[in-house]
Amino acid sequence: MSSMRQLLVHPSCEDLSLPTILYALGDPLRLRMVARLATGHDSDEKMACQDFLACEAVAKSTLSFHFKVLREAGLVRMVPQGRRVLVLLRREDLEARFPGVLEAVLSAYQKSITEKTR
Amino acid sequence: MSSMRQLLVHPSCEDLSLPTILYALGDPLRLRMVARLATGHDSDEKMACQDFLACEAVAKSTLSFHFKVLREAGLVRMVPQGRRVLVLLRREDLEARFPGVLEAVLSAYQKSITEKTR
Repeated sequence: MSSMRQLLVHPSCEDLSLPTILYALGDPLRLRMVARLATGHDSDEKMACQDFLACEAVAKSTLSFHFKVLREAGLVRMVPQGRRVLVLLRREDLEARFPGVLEAVLSAYQKSITEKTR
Repeated sequence: MSSMRQLLVHPSCEDLSLPTILYALGDPLRLRMVARLATGHDSDEKMACQDFLACEAVAKSTLSFHFKVLREAGLVRMVPQGRRVLVLLRREDLEARFPGVLEAVLSAYQKSITEKTR
């Protein structure tokens, strides 16, 4: 996903918009991607873009598109690191601007997943 | 808005979907409509469709479209009453399925409005 590197613009914390955040979370795949990051591989809540390909049965271009929506909304930060691009959840920025929203959404997501698999 | 009456289908509480709810809230006008209902005219959190026309500088057809999105997502219930259609926030259903989500979104919305007008 090296083509992403040219466009890694991130909105500042002050520029985050609540409807834009909700819109970005309002897609099943993107919501799953954010939940995966939040409960992710390591305690830093970051994953390499490539790792998502192993988790999701979607094309690389589809993932790239959804990463872009998440990044432009301000939900994730994307940081090139060597040949990889790391994705980090912007939990603190989101909590500062919209207290409790991400937490409530992630809890409700986990609850809905648990109910489904019961 | 009598043309609405033919189509007043509402998803059951069990059929509510988290991404669909977030998508419905992920539009500035719809978010404002929901916030208006939540802090609305009376303690029942219901308003007549017509009342929104007085609040929002948008066409009737635009409001009808957004009411439809909100209703189909399960955020509002629309009840014909005489010549009017009442809109009610489905706060209890939402709280039962996705605890804390609507509350957090409404609080964050109020906070962002307060910050803007400061």
